[in-house]
Amino acid sequence: MSSLKLPESTIPLLTNPTSCREWRQQIRGDHKSVGFVATMGALHAGHLSLVRHSKQANDKTVVSIFVNPAQFAPHEDLSAYPRTIEQDLRGLEEIGGVDAVFLPGVKDMYPFGIVQDVEQQRGTFVEVKGYGSEMEGRSRPSFFRGVATVVTKLFNVVEPTRVYFGQKDIQQALLLRRMCSDLLLSHPEPRNLHIVPTERDRTDNLALSSRNAYLSSEERKVANALYRALSLAKGVWETGLSKSECVARSRGFVESVRDNAGVEMRLDYIELNDSDSLEVVGDDKTKVDYGTRPVLLSGALWVGRTRLIDNLILGDPALLGILDSHVEVKV
Amino acid sequence: MSSLKLPESTIPLLTNPTSCREWRQQIRGDHKSVGFVATMGALHAGHLSLVRHSKQANDKTVVSIFVNPAQFAPHEDLSAYPRTIEQDLRGLEEIGGVDAVFLPGVKDMYPFGIVQDVEQQRGTFVEVKGYGSEMEGRSRPSFFRGVATVVTKLFNVVEPTRVYFGQKDIQQALLLRRMCSDLLLSHPEPRNLHIVPTERDRTDNLALSSRNAYLSSEERKVANALYRALSLAKGVWETGLSKSECVARSRGFVESVRDNAGVEMRLDYIELNDSDSLEVVGDDKTKVDYGTRPVLLSGALWVGRTRLIDNLILGDPALLGILDSHVEVKV
Repeated sequence: MSSLKLPESTIPLLTNPTSCREWRQQIRGDHKSVGFVATMGALHAGHLSLVRHSKQANDKTVVSIFVNPAQFAPHEDLSAYPRTIEQDLRGLEEIGGVDAVFLPGVKDMYPFGIVQDVEQQRGTFVEVKGYGSEMEGRSRPSFFRGVATVVTKLFNVVEPTRVYFGQKDIQQALLLRRMCSDLLLSHPEPRNLHIVPTERDRTDNLALSSRNAYLSSEERKVANALYRALSLAKGVWETGLSKSECVARSRGFVESVRDNAGVEMRLDYIELNDSDSLEVVGDDKTKVDYGTRPVLLSGALWVGRTRLIDNLILGDPALLGILDSHVEVKV
Repeated sequence: MSSLKLPESTIPLLTNPTSCREWRQQIRGDHKSVGFVATMGALHAGHLSLVRHSKQANDKTVVSIFVNPAQFAPHEDLSAYPRTIEQDLRGLEEIGGVDAVFLPGVKDMYPFGIVQDVEQQRGTFVEVKGYGSEMEGRSRPSFFRGVATVVTKLFNVVEPTRVYFGQKDIQQALLLRRMCSDLLLSHPEPRNLHIVPTERDRTDNLALSSRNAYLSSEERKVANALYRALSLAKGVWETGLSKSECVARSRGFVESVRDNAGVEMRLDYIELNDSDSLEVVGDDKTKVDYGTRPVLLSGALWVGRTRLIDNLILGDPALLGILDSHVEVKV
């Protein structure tokens, strides 16, 4: 941000790691708890829900806004990704503000620079092997390496007591919790990584996402097909049918929507994964094999040129430490 | 260590991350500086030199002893690596002690376990791309990933003000300094990663190493051939000849020693690398191309079944922040 003019705000803006550390240092003396919400900006009600959870449980709350180049592949939407900083600050002000917004520049987070071509990258990267290659990692092979790397840096600067991630990015949240355990982090301790349920459109249950802004009005009308397909699969699972049946029926549902949509739609995947190892659930497995043990039912759907993701938890979400339940409507 | 009987010592022994954090927390209140020396045990005068540097500059000094499985390849000497904990503590006591020794077990550092086969590894790893693949990384492709990973964990637990690494492992020291910069660490800040000159045998200048214990008496007699070859190459470089000439002559020297040695010797490599990027110096480059800018002259030599490494700095070692110079003798 250092080269840009800073927007006006009642919220203190910390534009580099040094000023963020100074801010943090002041809090430390008072032994106050610090809640942290890491974002790429383009804030919506989902982000604000994370911020509310943080404000409720901590003395201080800091939000970071940083569009992280390392988690975009060269063909992905880094340059198009919405940057709405003024609007983001207004949104935070409207819910009563936060104690600080950390707005670093790319050069602050990557002192030696960063290129998007993985082959050309140099310097330090954090990888969560096994976790990062399943689910979203199959379609986006170096995405989670970029996420784990930037979040490690953010945690090192902010040194938060508690952190909040959205269930919409469930794989990210579970992977980062594993990372906190593996790296013996105490800022935050792994148990203080909290997962907040996905916020959805009140009318049609589309999961809120910054990328929804890309959708045309025609695309928007069918964008909840993924949510409806996942809900269908969840219903099928509850009846005791096998995983392959769940996936087949939900795929069939998306195809039927697509055939009548009038817009381009392509299902990337719908899959069930073990919530512990993230391994794919066997084709013939059923609810009986898992009991209350949580299973991740997730998918990605292209609508036009926009890639949407969503997930539901099968089994008991409380066992994943998801903070509270959200209302789901039937298909 | 938790399953082993603890040796007697006047030095406080911290056997897991929790007790180490508690120790660190007490220091924090007093705003005292903490120096840290990470070791795999089998301490020799090289380690003790690091400890002395730390004691000189910090209020408190902590030494870790942990043989890190992740930096050994499956065919390497993990199980044979010398474990001499009682003797290590005596050595530390003899130089006036330290404030704590951190002795974690494998399960403490790798809560989900660790296997040595890289393909089978799961969980979080830290990699310094570019840096870890040159020099030692060519012979030991996942060595530095193991080092960077365990050192990240150790830094997260100890939160040191200053850290000390030996010049003998110059690539490790430079790679970890880059890692501290990249990950925006403040415990330690990158400028507080100090490099201490290599300690050598007073008689024949063999670099001190825990692995020297593997050498038979016949092998020990010719083990300084690498140091002598590097010194020869340094002399050749000073006269203005090209890199390829330096390497060729030092290789020739090792071959001549080998032909008369009566023990098995095999040169792994002798190479010159840029101290900034770690890239290999071009064959036709000379001292004129670098001036005082430091160049790493390093090598690895197998003597019997023991792999020895050593290095010298061409140019000005102070530009690498190496603490003070050491005496070198002529071949």
